[in-house]
Amino acid sequence: MKGIILIMDGMGDRPLKEIGYKTPLEAAKTPNMDKMAEMGITGIMDSIAPGIIPGSDTAHLSILGYNPYEVYTGRGPFEASGVGVDVMPGDIAFRCNFSTMDDEGIVTDRRAGRIRDRTDEIIQTLNEMTFDKYPNLKIIFKESTGHRAVLVLRDEGLSDKVSDADPKVEGNSPKEVVSLDGSKESMKTADILNLIVSKSYEMLKEHPVNIERINNNEPPANVIIPRGAGEVPDVEEINKKYNLNSACIAETGLIMGICRFAGMDIIEMEDVTGGVDTNLDNIVDTILNQVNNTDHDFFLINIDGADEAGHDGNLKEKLEFIEKVDDVVMSKLLDLEDVYLFLTADHSTPISVMNHSADPVPVLIKGPEVRTDDVNKFNEIDVAKGGLCRIRGSDVMNIMMDLMNNSQKFGA
Amino acid sequence: MKGIILIMDGMGDRPLKEIGYKTPLEAAKTPNMDKMAEMGITGIMDSIAPGIIPGSDTAHLSILGYNPYEVYTGRGPFEASGVGVDVMPGDIAFRCNFSTMDDEGIVTDRRAGRIRDRTDEIIQTLNEMTFDKYPNLKIIFKESTGHRAVLVLRDEGLSDKVSDADPKVEGNSPKEVVSLDGSKESMKTADILNLIVSKSYEMLKEHPVNIERINNNEPPANVIIPRGAGEVPDVEEINKKYNLNSACIAETGLIMGICRFAGMDIIEMEDVTGGVDTNLDNIVDTILNQVNNTDHDFFLINIDGADEAGHDGNLKEKLEFIEKVDDVVMSKLLDLEDVYLFLTADHSTPISVMNHSADPVPVLIKGPEVRTDDVNKFNEIDVAKGGLCRIRGSDVMNIMMDLMNNSQKFGA
Repeated sequence: MKGIILIMDGMGDRPLKEIGYKTPLEAAKTPNMDKMAEMGITGIMDSIAPGIIPGSDTAHLSILGYNPYEVYTGRGPFEASGVGVDVMPGDIAFRCNFSTMDDEGIVTDRRAGRIRDRTDEIIQTLNEMTFDKYPNLKIIFKESTGHRAVLVLRDEGLSDKVSDADPKVEGNSPKEVVSLDGSKESMKTADILNLIVSKSYEMLKEHPVNIERINNNEPPANVIIPRGAGEVPDVEEINKKYNLNSACIAETGLIMGICRFAGMDIIEMEDVTGGVDTNLDNIVDTILNQVNNTDHDFFLINIDGADEAGHDGNLKEKLEFIEKVDDVVMSKLLDLEDVYLFLTADHSTPISVMNHSADPVPVLIKGPEVRTDDVNKFNEIDVAKGGLCRIRGSDVMNIMMDLMNNSQKFGA
Repeated sequence: MKGIILIMDGMGDRPLKEIGYKTPLEAAKTPNMDKMAEMGITGIMDSIAPGIIPGSDTAHLSILGYNPYEVYTGRGPFEASGVGVDVMPGDIAFRCNFSTMDDEGIVTDRRAGRIRDRTDEIIQTLNEMTFDKYPNLKIIFKESTGHRAVLVLRDEGLSDKVSDADPKVEGNSPKEVVSLDGSKESMKTADILNLIVSKSYEMLKEHPVNIERINNNEPPANVIIPRGAGEVPDVEEINKKYNLNSACIAETGLIMGICRFAGMDIIEMEDVTGGVDTNLDNIVDTILNQVNNTDHDFFLINIDGADEAGHDGNLKEKLEFIEKVDDVVMSKLLDLEDVYLFLTADHSTPISVMNHSADPVPVLIKGPEVRTDDVNKFNEIDVAKGGLCRIRGSDVMNIMMDLMNNSQKFGA
């Protein structure tokens, strides 16, 4: 028996006057999800707890059975994992920008002209960075999309209790990184970061990529600005914890990072954007191929477009994207047999809020022998009358493992 | 005002194709439970937490207000308590088999020919066991049903972190018991257990009961094999905690053990089997006599047959047993006045699973001034729409004490 947790990122919403006080999911035509609701059991879910606004990262951690209050130390470790760095417990990870600095030390462009190309060559140079003062320190840079990169520090005696170097406003120098707790470890880490910022400028100011950018009148990517320190937590692998062979099918680095963290296999897809313009055919084909033709028995799937539309406050795009997912993806998942499908969102991203909210998300579970209820529409309002009542993100793995006959009895 | 928690062991189930995708409780004719649902308030319950598969023991602990993750150390202590040993906090308790060993030290029958009679005489001999090496050690044996017994060790400096002596497969010697954590206490306990296994053979090989068994060509019960070590936890008595005078009406040693543990009086019944063939008239007469004619004000009642039918995967027996309980027991409890009745199951034992599952169980509360809802059928599906929504086992005692006007306000 296989299991799928399918997360429509940010799909939850609130009633909107312009569509007759319905939510986008209520207003959208979603015959396939409605059919799943009819076949299965429904309810509402707080990814973390009622009233707590989840990030996509903390929500996914919770849904995968990890306590985000224990393991979430900041975005750095999950971003680093997401771009493919094999982070290790105890590493300190940062998000970085490639920025442009002038010879007076003033940041003139925080995003280095939104550089897109050849950042891998810059990263290759940065990865040669060492400091005699810290002979055992391992410095790992890795490019992400556009002007974004990650930095991972590996050594004894480091700490994530350090401030950001990001000056936030152009026209300032990079901020001096300082210890936030006065500990020896954080002072060492702050010193390393300040050295890295200076050294990056030295190494990059005449880098071939930047010489060419200057010649093309583009701002050079000549300094690296770290922020968002987080210590990589030690977590139990999901496959070991639940005896699974699991895989992640996602569009964004953040979600892939969380899944890689949990020890899941990451399935690469072509032509997916994380936006409303993503290639849904590729996504559903990947899902079906994985479910039908591989040994993977458990999947975390994330489709991101509804969240993007929510952040943009774009009702039309959110409505259309939900309908498109129903038509292209759900229609093909409807008839999967011997599979437990847990369909939900990680959080609400209401059009009216243009950001995440704590409104609970709709949930349905479809599969063999699942108890049913009277609900035959999949939206925030109808499912609140469903047979699951109100559950939490931390219940999801336990419920799925029980249905998949993959749990042990506690007691006799 | 009196209170009853009536637990239909393992009654919860999943929809079954052969009865039109209804659960056994949905399909069964249960006019009396349906009437109770109509009169009272209903909901679903996770005995421990959503997705956690409860044992009967851990579920009952949770429902009685104890945290099973804190107090459940294994089955030994509850079995020992169940057969009537007055266990004390710190005791180390074990389940044992009477087995048959040959003079080469090989276990030839793990259940000593499923011995049924005169085990009390063997136990009497074993209870004379002492070791000069451990002068303060108290060794308590007690027979259970058939080839089963319990062993309780009482001394300073013992531990339950020891392995089992059970060879699991016949044709092997009893396993040497070893420390699981390398502690002084567990090494002492392992040594004691190894001495007990050897000594039991010495004391029993020419025991009169065994001489007779050998003469009758029956395997002698000449060695005792302990397993399932558990340290007896220190729990607050339920009567003290909630100011009650409580009693247990149950069929099986395990449930009686948990209730004795909680300090409840145990009401003995004749002719009850824990199966579908149990004497339900005796059970309901005992309940009514206790409620009407004694000072007991609170009851934990467990009726076991539905669980047995579930474990056997026997749909017909489960259906018929539920209907019989409704007819014989519930009909007489329907009109009890001045009594709060909390009717539920400890866990689901779906016919299709033939073991416990984590599917939530149905709940109803009937009694004076209880809020009502629209639900007028008592089954897993209908009650999910009830006014209690979804509660946990750990909520039960608090809800009952509040209804019985037996709680204190927290705060001002």
